[in-house]
Amino acid sequence: DKKLALVTGRAYPEQAQETAKYLGTDVLETTAYDFANGEMYVRYTEPVRGADAFVMQAHTEPINKWIMEQLIMVDAMKRASARSITVVAPFLGYSRQDKKHQGREPITARLMFDLFRSAGADRIMTVDLHAAQEQGFFDGPVDHLTAMPILLDYVRNSMPLENTTIVSPDAGRIKVSEQWAAKLGGLPLAFIHKTRDTTRPNHAEAHGIIGDVKGRDCVVVDDMIDTAGTICEAVRTLNNAGAKSVTLVATHGLLSGPAVERLKNCGAREIVLTDTVPVPEEKRLPNMTVLSVAPLLAAGIRSVFESGSVSTLLNGLPE
Amino acid sequence: DKKLALVTGRAYPEQAQETAKYLGTDVLETTAYDFANGEMYVRYTEPVRGADAFVMQAHTEPINKWIMEQLIMVDAMKRASARSITVVAPFLGYSRQDKKHQGREPITARLMFDLFRSAGADRIMTVDLHAAQEQGFFDGPVDHLTAMPILLDYVRNSMPLENTTIVSPDAGRIKVSEQWAAKLGGLPLAFIHKTRDTTRPNHAEAHGIIGDVKGRDCVVVDDMIDTAGTICEAVRTLNNAGAKSVTLVATHGLLSGPAVERLKNCGAREIVLTDTVPVPEEKRLPNMTVLSVAPLLAAGIRSVFESGSVSTLLNGLPE
Ligand SMILES: Nc1ncnc2c1ncn2[C@@H]1O[C@H](COP(=O)(O)O)[C@@H](O)[C@H]1O
Ligand SMILES: Nc1ncnc2c1ncn2[C@@H]1O[C@H](COP(=O)(O)O)[C@@H](O)[C@H]1O
Repeated sequence: DKKLALVTGRAYPEQAQETAKYLGTDVLETTAYDFANGEMYVRYTEPVRGADAFVMQAHTEPINKWIMEQLIMVDAMKRASARSITVVAPFLGYSRQDKKHQGREPITARLMFDLFRSAGADRIMTVDLHAAQEQGFFDGPVDHLTAMPILLDYVRNSMPLENTTIVSPDAGRIKVSEQWAAKLGGLPLAFIHKTRDTTRPNHAEAHGIIGDVKGRDCVVVDDMIDTAGTICEAVRTLNNAGAKSVTLVATHGLLSGPAVERLKNCGAREIVLTDTVPVPEEKRLPNMTVLSVAPLLAAGIRSVFESGSVSTLLNGLPE
Repeated sequence: DKKLALVTGRAYPEQAQETAKYLGTDVLETTAYDFANGEMYVRYTEPVRGADAFVMQAHTEPINKWIMEQLIMVDAMKRASARSITVVAPFLGYSRQDKKHQGREPITARLMFDLFRSAGADRIMTVDLHAAQEQGFFDGPVDHLTAMPILLDYVRNSMPLENTTIVSPDAGRIKVSEQWAAKLGGLPLAFIHKTRDTTRPNHAEAHGIIGDVKGRDCVVVDDMIDTAGTICEAVRTLNNAGAKSVTLVATHGLLSGPAVERLKNCGAREIVLTDTVPVPEEKRLPNMTVLSVAPLLAAGIRSVFESGSVSTLLNGLPE
């Protein structure tokens, strides 16, 4: 008889609880604590032998600790004779370090896949990787989900679209914006043309706009909002160019460091995120909407559990 | 031409500097910093192609972060075409989680070796593993150094030994105490007989003493002092039994949580440690001596670099 074992690390257990509800199951109880020197202890208190295990963790701060906890959980799951182990990391840490920009740099995104593999993961489930190519970093199936249906649904139902333009905050993301424009019935496109200062992290310089934004309701679509430097520059650039309103949409709301302060003051009408990492109360602005990815994760987990594939999810969320 | 590349993470760079001095070389410059969301960036600023690389890191708090940094450094070293990569972890984190005590526990000590292997490590150099068996956790050479010569030398030169008894703080460490007693010219032995409360971490109950300690200068030898609960109980037990003095000796001075407060009040004459993890100024008691393992690490690194083995080190420190 097939058995599903859903477990979670300590970074964002609420997400696992909610996912379990959609699955009509419970999160398996886990004992987890820190020893005095910062090492962590993990143990499953219920049997997992023969189960298809899903080990969830949010890669949020302290991110290295939570990644390590998830690795330890995979090791424990392997030794407890789970039949299969799927790592569920809705935001995959280090996914931006996916290539060498200079000599003697790591490719930490690849390292993440290697570490999970060596701990015992059979598959990796994640949402909106920084680059889809990273699926090839894993020697096994990667269930690459997208939060686009969730975000699209929200935008569709929360604003009139007659006057809307989809804006890519940078040339690298035009393809995603094209998909957005198409899914929303063929909206016009624009993109911000910028030069990135590669010598300093989290810094970028906005420049001009390609496309027409004057008097338009602009929807800027990105994969993540981290320190919000780039995206807030984009809002300013759009407003200076006479945009009627600017809505920011992104899957991963990392909201690090100065992000919230910047978002508060940048002149965006609304900020729409998902909870691939937890967004704590104190970071939630009045004009910020955080959508749950639990239904998406539940659908992904159900697909893998029932048919060993998430292909049915590729074109949207099943009922 | 053979080239040695010694690099260090950010946990305890002073140790690498000191080790480099003994080797007559320099630590290679590394750029390393934290991104806003806690992910880390690492890059070597000098060529390492073809080098025999030694990647040092202290597994001290925040321990999971520093382990991850070391993994990333190994990945970068591999991609920069180092000829061989030796991980130098003087105290190996998680080495106490070396077996399953109950079902559904991880064996995190094994996981550590697996992770370093999968990042690209060819060998692991470490000092006084919690259990020597852990060498078998690595699919490759483990250079298992011992700080015993350093500690023995210090004890030999700092106290008269006519009236000394070597005490094992627990039955599991009697073998090491036997070695100490033999190396110091055949000193008498004693050990503390205790029952460990396995349901609570960092708690142990001291009981009786096997052997003669009344009026004796007792030297208690352990591999590590973490929260110092067990060892301070041992001191009290020995003093209650009429010991003349109690000296504590251990390789790894983790000194977590209440350790320093406990050591201050437990009635030990002296506490002798090494710096396999850094011991910050504020944790150093007036009666605490911290010995450097840099000469030992330098000797180990030189042996591996020159002959691919540390066997010459097994019976003490070479000149
Ligand atoms: N956690 C991070 N925070 C900020 N920048 C990062 C982070 N990780 C990697 N990067 C850098 O972000 C850039 C990613 O570029 P791109 O893939 O073009 O968006 C590279 O220069 C990376 O070095
Ligand atoms: N970081 C740690 N701090 C305290 N106890 C630990 C730590 N890691 C593992 N342990 C426990 O320490 C015990 C090791 O036992 P032993 O090998 O007999 O000294 C086991 O019960 C482990 O679960």
